[in-house]
Amino acid sequence: MEMPRPDTRVIERKKHIVSRLEAVLAKGAVIHDENETRAYECDALTAYRCPPMCVVLPSTTEEVAQVLKLCSEERVPVVPRGAGTSLAGGALPTADCVVLGVARMNAVLETDYDNRFIRVQTGRTNLSVSGAVEDNGFFYAPDPSSQLACAISGNIAMNSGGAHCLKYGVTTNNLLGVRMVTMDGEIVDIGGAYMDAGGLDLLGVICGSEGQLGVVTEATLRILPKPEGARPVLIGFDSNEVAGACVSDIIKAGVLPVAIEFMDRPCIRACEAFAKAGYPDCEALLIVEVEGSDAEIDYQLGLIKQIAMGHNPVEFRESKSPEESAAIWLGRKSAFGAMGQINDYMCLDGTIPVSELPLVLRRIREISATYGLEVANVFHAGDGNMHPLILFDANKEGDLEKCEALGADILRLCVEVGGCLTGEHGVGVEKRDLMLDQYSETDLEAQLWVKDVFDPHWLLNSAKVFPLAVTEARREAAANG
Amino acid sequence: MEMPRPDTRVIERKKHIVSRLEAVLAKGAVIHDENETRAYECDALTAYRCPPMCVVLPSTTEEVAQVLKLCSEERVPVVPRGAGTSLAGGALPTADCVVLGVARMNAVLETDYDNRFIRVQTGRTNLSVSGAVEDNGFFYAPDPSSQLACAISGNIAMNSGGAHCLKYGVTTNNLLGVRMVTMDGEIVDIGGAYMDAGGLDLLGVICGSEGQLGVVTEATLRILPKPEGARPVLIGFDSNEVAGACVSDIIKAGVLPVAIEFMDRPCIRACEAFAKAGYPDCEALLIVEVEGSDAEIDYQLGLIKQIAMGHNPVEFRESKSPEESAAIWLGRKSAFGAMGQINDYMCLDGTIPVSELPLVLRRIREISATYGLEVANVFHAGDGNMHPLILFDANKEGDLEKCEALGADILRLCVEVGGCLTGEHGVGVEKRDLMLDQYSETDLEAQLWVKDVFDPHWLLNSAKVFPLAVTEARREAAANG
Repeated sequence: MEMPRPDTRVIERKKHIVSRLEAVLAKGAVIHDENETRAYECDALTAYRCPPMCVVLPSTTEEVAQVLKLCSEERVPVVPRGAGTSLAGGALPTADCVVLGVARMNAVLETDYDNRFIRVQTGRTNLSVSGAVEDNGFFYAPDPSSQLACAISGNIAMNSGGAHCLKYGVTTNNLLGVRMVTMDGEIVDIGGAYMDAGGLDLLGVICGSEGQLGVVTEATLRILPKPEGARPVLIGFDSNEVAGACVSDIIKAGVLPVAIEFMDRPCIRACEAFAKAGYPDCEALLIVEVEGSDAEIDYQLGLIKQIAMGHNPVEFRESKSPEESAAIWLGRKSAFGAMGQINDYMCLDGTIPVSELPLVLRRIREISATYGLEVANVFHAGDGNMHPLILFDANKEGDLEKCEALGADILRLCVEVGGCLTGEHGVGVEKRDLMLDQYSETDLEAQLWVKDVFDPHWLLNSAKVFPLAVTEARREAAANG
Repeated sequence: MEMPRPDTRVIERKKHIVSRLEAVLAKGAVIHDENETRAYECDALTAYRCPPMCVVLPSTTEEVAQVLKLCSEERVPVVPRGAGTSLAGGALPTADCVVLGVARMNAVLETDYDNRFIRVQTGRTNLSVSGAVEDNGFFYAPDPSSQLACAISGNIAMNSGGAHCLKYGVTTNNLLGVRMVTMDGEIVDIGGAYMDAGGLDLLGVICGSEGQLGVVTEATLRILPKPEGARPVLIGFDSNEVAGACVSDIIKAGVLPVAIEFMDRPCIRACEAFAKAGYPDCEALLIVEVEGSDAEIDYQLGLIKQIAMGHNPVEFRESKSPEESAAIWLGRKSAFGAMGQINDYMCLDGTIPVSELPLVLRRIREISATYGLEVANVFHAGDGNMHPLILFDANKEGDLEKCEALGADILRLCVEVGGCLTGEHGVGVEKRDLMLDQYSETDLEAQLWVKDVFDPHWLLNSAKVFPLAVTEARREAAANG
């Protein structure tokens, strides 16, 4: 058999697509040189890489519509991209695709303080949404760890959360409306600056759909008045089980802190070694933060203290000053950096019923021991969104594979106890083949119906979210049908 | 031409369908006698009536699946029905349909206080969900006025709200998961007792879909700990505009009362004449209620008083006892009864941006004057959900038609100012032909895509939600395709 030669049909096709794209977009908005497209070969799940055929950077919704119409006609796959910070491979290109980046679309289109919303183009970064309204005393609540870099488009795609989402909800609870371009190039408005709408409410299924249904170019977001103040407490326990029970009891009592963060011993030690925040050396630490006026804060922390004391904590440290507050948060905020310094790690994202925390932490320890790997836990405990960090050595043969297998086992455990595969990172490429652990074939079929009608040729961000075999069967059926 | 005779084909078809239904359901679960089916000829929109072909009352999800599979095979339209309290004709039968009532499916399947949820069959009434958990100190938040009678199935279909939804959100914010039967008889589980799920989140589009996508037989609902206490204030103003501005300012300040109810002068006078609650005779009244511990209540009411005083109220009455609280709520709670005693009325349901309240109230007065009809306003002002009551005389020729035309004008006004056609009653039959005032054809098409895949033959609760011409075209296309 002969060696394969560069496929001239592929080269010709690329030339043809690029020239059509250049005809509808501004100069410099189509990137096709291989040295430049490489910048888009992956997102924050860097284990997977593939440079795309080309990249487009439109400036308006109308340009996005023209690109999608053209790609639809030409049957070119399209991978939408915000800031490329997905930890699940949500913006991973394929070799035959056009990456559609919304980074140039970052304008504020409208702010309305009376009705508490802001309308932005979705290439705008999360933090700069709050930045646009903070002088008027407002903020945008969802705060993923990547908020300095990540775009609203990606937040909507993944239904992103963050440390403060226990009180304020995740993206879906703060998204009022979107303008979206469907794969055939139609522009649709869904939701708006009001509470509800008649007919089918498509906003919920768009939010978290990981770019499977369309490209969201504008978003109307709820903004909230900034609270008067905030104060954290640090609570240490000599067992994960007792710390988990304390979280359950706080939630059960109906107190609503803005954040309940949980760290286990491997995480505490790594953070303390790195950041020297003065954390006690115990089995489990909670950081519980409440917001409001001084009177409200005192009241809420009083209740939390009463509940915590019932669980015999080894430490209960209430911040008395902004400096002490910063010290309490310092270790937690450096957790990922601390881990990265001592190990390679894989960050998982699963959600469980809060009451199952003690059981799940114990099972994670048992399962990881059978793999000979260590898992550090740091996560948003209040809403059951876990982020186990599997520590491994990328240079040790077989360690990455063991790590991936352990990760899948931990996520299956989340599903088993009544939770689910993802909290805020999405399914992406990472978890697509675990979807049948979460859903029956019938459950999944209902999702596929919706994908089919919005994207009949399976061109939009395909090979993600759904099991690869399903995507392949669906694409083949579409090509033949 | 001969007079039409009773169509023997219709009679034969009914006999055939009834016998197939009787073969899969328990004795007494199929109602086909014309005297008995008449009980199901309408819902709470009593202007429209039509007895169905027959009624089925299944007891299990599996029975619902058998009924839908059979109706799908036979191409019989199905109208799902909860308690029949829809004000928008959401459960109105057609002559050729099977009404599928879930009233017998009212069991509590699971309660979990640690994770704060309850799982019920959807025929259970709204109030009895709270009833099942109140001894443990919990409640289910959405509280539509019809909560004594209305079923959870209907709450999910219409995404129902209620007076206390300003703080706790409407049904979609309190619904964690559903078990649903699709028109082809498949049983699917969507969502669960956790925060988020991988893949497409279909829960949002199911909630509020008015029975267009499937029959929801089980629901997992969030339950909340009962607050320690609640206290209302009554605030009177000498203009609607100033009262509206006060509502805007309370919301803008970030205080979160559980309820802000608004009554205008026609409503105040009718309530006072009926209930003698001691309301002042002014242009506009607000009832603002806050919840929490005594300290929290004092703090929140202090802020509200400060804001209200800036608008020179003619009355500010803070409740000092449970008796005074009851008196403040007495008039509001009897508003619909009071109206019914002096007039026929039509209750509208639209939503507007809160800041547009003063403008919308003024325009409603102007438009209703051109029709020579009076409109009384009583509504959930905090979230912009209006319920204008158009007063008319059903015995006066042409008054009902004038009333319907005025209603349509008022709803179009809601859309014009950036709001929407419905807050919590749904579109149903009532507002189906106004949908194109809300949505562009492209916007609506995206909704139709979803309807098409879940119900390809348009058998489920059809002739509702979408404009009648659209439904007819779609059904014809399906029949020919």
